[in-house]
Amino acid sequence: MPQFVPVDDPADPRVARYVAVRERDLVGHGRRFIAEGEVVLRHLLSRRRFALESLLVAEKRLGHLADELAQVPAGVPVYVASQGVMDAIVGFHIHRGVLAIGLRGEEPTAEALLAGLGPHALVVALVGIANHDNMGGIFRNAAAFGADAVLIDETSCDPLYRKAIRVSVGASLIVPFAREGNGDGLVDLLARHGFEAVALSPRGRERLSDLPRPGRVALLLGAEGPGLPEALLARTRSVRIPMAAGFDSLNVATTSGIALHHLAMQG
Amino acid sequence: MPQFVPVDDPADPRVARYVAVRERDLVGHGRRFIAEGEVVLRHLLSRRRFALESLLVAEKRLGHLADELAQVPAGVPVYVASQGVMDAIVGFHIHRGVLAIGLRGEEPTAEALLAGLGPHALVVALVGIANHDNMGGIFRNAAAFGADAVLIDETSCDPLYRKAIRVSVGASLIVPFAREGNGDGLVDLLARHGFEAVALSPRGRERLSDLPRPGRVALLLGAEGPGLPEALLARTRSVRIPMAAGFDSLNVATTSGIALHHLAMQG
Repeated sequence: MPQFVPVDDPADPRVARYVAVRERDLVGHGRRFIAEGEVVLRHLLSRRRFALESLLVAEKRLGHLADELAQVPAGVPVYVASQGVMDAIVGFHIHRGVLAIGLRGEEPTAEALLAGLGPHALVVALVGIANHDNMGGIFRNAAAFGADAVLIDETSCDPLYRKAIRVSVGASLIVPFAREGNGDGLVDLLARHGFEAVALSPRGRERLSDLPRPGRVALLLGAEGPGLPEALLARTRSVRIPMAAGFDSLNVATTSGIALHHLAMQG
Repeated sequence: MPQFVPVDDPADPRVARYVAVRERDLVGHGRRFIAEGEVVLRHLLSRRRFALESLLVAEKRLGHLADELAQVPAGVPVYVASQGVMDAIVGFHIHRGVLAIGLRGEEPTAEALLAGLGPHALVVALVGIANHDNMGGIFRNAAAFGADAVLIDETSCDPLYRKAIRVSVGASLIVPFAREGNGDGLVDLLARHGFEAVALSPRGRERLSDLPRPGRVALLLGAEGPGLPEALLARTRSVRIPMAAGFDSLNVATTSGIALHHLAMQG
């Protein structure tokens, strides 16, 4: 039975970490992250990868969330408030009626992550993905197509940012990731672990659809607009997705979906 | 030479249609639509599919937009304001520094659109796509993969809504579309014009990657969550995109990109 704690006062110090979530998003939540919505909560609870610190639930959603709440570990408080009090705490209308605060654990190094994968592993490597929608979308596709891990360079944004988790539909709580170094460092590391780095670019030398599936493969993606640096394209296997003349523009999350689908179908 | 009109007063009646754009978005702009940003403006000007009523440009962007502004037809006023006055008119910060008001023309019927297409035409048919991000993303993919038209049922949202245009990177100003009837009506119409309707669904009978390209083909997509109604799946060729166990969830715009790529590569 979860430990329900009624909250009537938006200024209750026990829910201080839920106050003004959007403003806190901007400065970061330190070793904590905010997960919102039922589907995300379900992934958070079922995978047990991250510890839960607390939940904040709108009273009227308690019945609907009964199955999820029954899985909340003992000792984790479930703060229960009216929708009005919840909205007043958070600073905007939480129409999904449920927020959770998770705790980041020790994150693995990229080295350790790759070393633990099998001979047909598929990973995604991201360089300069600064947009949380794109980050979330890429994780969603990585989970959907069974990618084993995501490597993220130091200039990319945080997959555990609230909006990235939401757009990923919880996938950034599922797919293991490691964040370190720059694109060159990631490609070096991938090579040492026997991964073929396949770089997506409108200037790619081969068509994606002609690419045979390498054994261990890493899909390398850069930000829309600048794309991957030429130097990285020169030292990787670069592939392109042919597009109609006059409109050579795909969203990077969509690109990841197309490429992951191609590789997964040959897996 | 475009007709530049300096505006110093946010209450100037000549720019009244730009006042409080977000509030106006909610009620609709009638036969007008709002386009924002340089790339979107470029598509709007180069394709000449829609008439322009006026532009509103931040003074500091004039030099940067010189090429685009040179293409503005004579008689279309280009209102020029400081960034501060522009933001005060519109009601939020327009960091792209350019807005345009376009005029919807007579839209073709779906019948007329299909009748004008060739023997290898590729169209996208949308049922119940109510989210503007998804609508914009689907149009972006339709343009990128050279789809000839998009048919939209009456429950789907408007591709010329400001956010849909922006997310489409102008593609909803490029790809011809028609909006009418329901999913059944669209499938009837497609059949009469010799299009094979290929419906995407997690419950699809064939794998997308095994699908040979039909001559005239229509990709049928429904909203995430409910998806396409069973009755529509029963009377179309239904295909699925295989996904990892435990996470069978793809964004509908990403789905459109994967399916369009598959068909375009065999086109």
